[in-house]
Amino acid sequence: MISKKMMKLTQNNSVIRAMFEEGNRLAALHGRENVYDFSLGNPNFPAPPAVEEAIISLTANEDPMTLHGYMSNIGFPDVRRKVADSLNKRFATSFDESNVIMSVGAAGGLNVVFKTLLDPGDEVVAISPYFVEYGNYLDNFDGKLVVVPSMAETFMPDADALRKSVTQRTKAIILNSPNNPTGVIYSEETIKGLAATLEDLSRENGSPIYIISDEPYRELAYDGAYVPFLTKYYKNTIVCYSWSKSLSLSGERIGYILIPSEIDDYKLIFEAAGIATRVLGYVNAPSLMQKAVAECLDAQVDIASYDANRKLLFNALKECGFDPVFPQGAFYMWVKTPCDDKEFAEAAKKHNILLVPGTSFACPGYVRIAYCVSKATIENSLPAFRKLAADTLR
Amino acid sequence: MISKKMMKLTQNNSVIRAMFEEGNRLAALHGRENVYDFSLGNPNFPAPPAVEEAIISLTANEDPMTLHGYMSNIGFPDVRRKVADSLNKRFATSFDESNVIMSVGAAGGLNVVFKTLLDPGDEVVAISPYFVEYGNYLDNFDGKLVVVPSMAETFMPDADALRKSVTQRTKAIILNSPNNPTGVIYSEETIKGLAATLEDLSRENGSPIYIISDEPYRELAYDGAYVPFLTKYYKNTIVCYSWSKSLSLSGERIGYILIPSEIDDYKLIFEAAGIATRVLGYVNAPSLMQKAVAECLDAQVDIASYDANRKLLFNALKECGFDPVFPQGAFYMWVKTPCDDKEFAEAAKKHNILLVPGTSFACPGYVRIAYCVSKATIENSLPAFRKLAADTLR
Repeated sequence: MISKKMMKLTQNNSVIRAMFEEGNRLAALHGRENVYDFSLGNPNFPAPPAVEEAIISLTANEDPMTLHGYMSNIGFPDVRRKVADSLNKRFATSFDESNVIMSVGAAGGLNVVFKTLLDPGDEVVAISPYFVEYGNYLDNFDGKLVVVPSMAETFMPDADALRKSVTQRTKAIILNSPNNPTGVIYSEETIKGLAATLEDLSRENGSPIYIISDEPYRELAYDGAYVPFLTKYYKNTIVCYSWSKSLSLSGERIGYILIPSEIDDYKLIFEAAGIATRVLGYVNAPSLMQKAVAECLDAQVDIASYDANRKLLFNALKECGFDPVFPQGAFYMWVKTPCDDKEFAEAAKKHNILLVPGTSFACPGYVRIAYCVSKATIENSLPAFRKLAADTLR
Repeated sequence: MISKKMMKLTQNNSVIRAMFEEGNRLAALHGRENVYDFSLGNPNFPAPPAVEEAIISLTANEDPMTLHGYMSNIGFPDVRRKVADSLNKRFATSFDESNVIMSVGAAGGLNVVFKTLLDPGDEVVAISPYFVEYGNYLDNFDGKLVVVPSMAETFMPDADALRKSVTQRTKAIILNSPNNPTGVIYSEETIKGLAATLEDLSRENGSPIYIISDEPYRELAYDGAYVPFLTKYYKNTIVCYSWSKSLSLSGERIGYILIPSEIDDYKLIFEAAGIATRVLGYVNAPSLMQKAVAECLDAQVDIASYDANRKLLFNALKECGFDPVFPQGAFYMWVKTPCDDKEFAEAAKKHNILLVPGTSFACPGYVRIAYCVSKATIENSLPAFRKLAADTLR
C-alpha cells in the first residue's frame, strides 16, 4: 500500500538512524552512561550561550507576528543580508541578500538544490566514502548518484577518476569538506585541480557541472587548518550550509543556500530555488531560528573540546592497535577494520559501543566513530575498545 | 539549466505568493497602512502569551542538547504523547505516541504522506475550489491531481461527482474543512455520505482510498460550529495538522501527522512516513517548537477577533452590493465577482486592495479575501471596497 520507493527505503532503513534507536534501546537496558554511542553526528556540546540569549531576547522583545509569521519563502531579508555580510567579512567575498536563501538545514538545502537542477536521469557525482543520504535525496527527484572513490590513504577527491565518470548527463558534483565520515579537509591544491578538471569537463559538455558544497562542518577545523571557500575557486559553486554542528542546533533545522551571482543562470536558479523551498513543503526556514542565528554569526562552537576528544580517542585507538585516520576537521574518526566492517560493528555492540560500518558510506573495511560526545563517554569507553581490540585484532 | 518541472513552476509562480511580494512593493510605495493586503493566510493576531512563555521557559530551563538536538525523526516521544492525549481528551479517541509524527507544518506533513503513499501516476482527488499548492506537492512525486468540483452554492463535496472521478489509480482524497478558500465547514451529514461512498469505492477498487485531512483551520470555527473529526467517520483517514493558524506560528513550520492504528497497513505507513520525513530533508520538525507547542495544547487562538472581522467585512461587502459566502470557519471570505475574477483582482489593486482570484483555486468567478488582518485594515479598506463596487458593479 505504500509507494515502491518507500518500500525499498523501509527495507534499507538508514543504518545510522537504526543505530540511534538501538542506542536508546541499550541505554534503557544498561543505563545511558554504560552505552558508548558513537553512531550519530548529534553534538554533545551545548549551543553557545549567545544562542540562548538571542532566543530569549527575540521572544521577549520582537513583534511576535514578525518573529513567528510568514516571510518571503527565501527568508527574512535582514537575516539574509547579515549572513552575506558575515561571509564577506570572513572570506573577502561580495555577496548580498540576493545570494542567500535560508533553508531547513543542509538536508533541506540539498533537496532544494536538487529539485532546482535535476531532471529525471540527471547524474550527480559523490566522492566515496560519502554521506549515505545523498542517494536518497537524489532519488526524490529521480536523479542518479554516481559514486567516484576518493584516493586511497588520503581520501582526497581523485580528479582523474572523476573525469572518467562524467557523462553528458552529469549536472553536479557534491563536495563535503571537512568530510563526513573521514575527517579529511580537501587541500587548496586538490580544490584547484578539481576546479580545473570541472571547467574542462563543463566546456566539453557544453553545459556547466555545478559544485554543490555541503558544508555543515565548515567551522570544525583543527590546528588552524585552512578550509578553502569553494566559490573563490570555481565559479559554478552552490553552497549548502547548516548551523546544526557549528552552533549545536541540529534539531532546529536551520541553514542556508548560497547562490553566487556569478554562476551560470544565476537568476533562474535563484528564483527556482525559492519556489522549490515552497513547493517541497518547507515553505520557509523556521522563523525564530532565522533571527536567532543571525544574532550569533560570530559565536564560536567549543572546538577545543572536540579537539581534546579527537586527540584522546585517536591516541587510545592507536594504543589498542587500531588504525584510525587522524581527523583534520569535523568530529568523525575513520578507522580501518581488522575484519568485515559490519562484523566489526556487531562485535563492538557486544561491548555497548555503537559505531557505523563503512559500508553505509559506500566504503567497506572502515567504521565511523562520531566523537561529538562527552569526554567522559570517550574515557569510559576505552576499556570497551580494549576488549574489542582483543576480540578482533590478532 | 534548471529542471523542466521548475521551469514550468517559475513560469506559473504562485499568484498568492506573488501577491505577497506585490503587497510589500505597494507598502514601500504608499505606506503599509494604505495597502489593504488580504492576499495571504498570515495571521495578524499574535501567538497566545502561553507560546512566548513556553519558548522562554524551555530555553532558560531545558538541557540545550535535548532542546536543540536531534531526536527520533518522528519527533520527541513526550511531545507526541501529549498531542495524542490532547486529541483523546477533545475527541474521545484513543491515540498514543505511535500514531503521531511531528511535521514541518501541514505542508511538510502532506509532502510526507504523498511520498509515503504515491507511485508515479497515482491519483489524488481534491475538491475545488482547493488550495493550489496541492497540485505542486503531488507533482513532487509524479502524482496526478484529479479535481472534483464541490456543489454549487454550498461548496460541500459532491459524493456523486467523486464517484465518477475515481479510478483504479485513485489512492486518496484530500479534504480541507474548515475550508480554504470558501470558509465552509463540511457538515456531519456530508462527511457520513462521503465516508460511505469511499468505503464502496475502496471495496470496488480492492484497495483503500485514504482520506488525507488537511486541518490547519480546525480550531477556527465560529458560532460553536461542529467540525467532524474525520478518523471517527472513516477508518482510512490520515490527518495533517498545523499550528500555523491556530497558534499564529506560520513561520515556525510546526505541525503533526496523525496515523490511526486502524488504517490499512498502519505499521508500514507509519514507518515509511518517519523515513520519508528524513529523506525529504526535513529530518525532523523544529525541536524547540515541538516542545513549545506541547506546552500550549490548550491555548486558544483569538477567535473572537477573527469573528469580529468576519462580520464586519461580510456586512460591509453586502452593503456594497457584493455577494460573499458567509464563512463558518477559517479566515477567508469567498466572494462572487461581477466580472472575470482576474480582472476584478486587478481592479481591486488600483484601490490598493490585494486579494486572490478564484482561478488560483480552480474556481473562476470568485475571489478570496483573507481577513486574518487587523480590524483597522478592514475598517480603512471599506472606502476602497466602495470604490471597487462603483467600478465593477452595474
